[in-house]
Amino acid sequence: MALQDESLDGVFAALGDATRRGVITRLGRGPASVGDLARDVPMALPSFLKHIRTLEATDLIRTTKAGRVRTCELNRARLALVTGWLDEQRQLWDERTDRLEQFVTDPEENP
Amino acid sequence: MALQDESLDGVFAALGDATRRGVITRLGRGPASVGDLARDVPMALPSFLKHIRTLEATDLIRTTKAGRVRTCELNRARLALVTGWLDEQRQLWDERTDRLEQFVTDPEENP
Repeated sequence: MALQDESLDGVFAALGDATRRGVITRLGRGPASVGDLARDVPMALPSFLKHIRTLEATDLIRTTKAGRVRTCELNRARLALVTGWLDEQRQLWDERTDRLEQFVTDPEENP
Repeated sequence: MALQDESLDGVFAALGDATRRGVITRLGRGPASVGDLARDVPMALPSFLKHIRTLEATDLIRTTKAGRVRTCELNRARLALVTGWLDEQRQLWDERTDRLEQFVTDPEENP
């Protein structure tokens, strides 16, 4: 399994949860403290922190601590892995459509 | 949790596995039988069938049986859920960039 495959496993799995996707969406508007993020989520703090750690472990977010405040920031490059994979799929579909079209328009060249 | 959220959970989770992503990629070139798909994968058939069932349960693929052959087909509409979510995120980032630019170019209008 290629390195990128393993990364994709973790990124897709991390995104398979509405709370974690909510954090990603919120951080898309800019960095936020763990405290502020937790305030938006109807969930006990320890459970919420697990989600934060999952996102951090897959490098979808990065956190820094200043004093008692831990700030989270989105790592868009990591989400780009998913976009890249989807683009590859779309390219394969387009190639298939092109082949089918060629077959229909030039049947003699495709016995 | 909205209905779409639950669907997204399943779709993202299903894509968090290289074998299942490989099936999606293969089916992007056109429908294939379970037997043909299994031949490409160095894995015991029962394990592989579990992956097929996971993909079917999330509606990423659909299968039909004719005689003894079960054929799998990609359901691209389901993958579009992921594309749609990513597009939403990108839109949020763009809006944020626009706001930042406006702040830099018109600082007086943004006290």
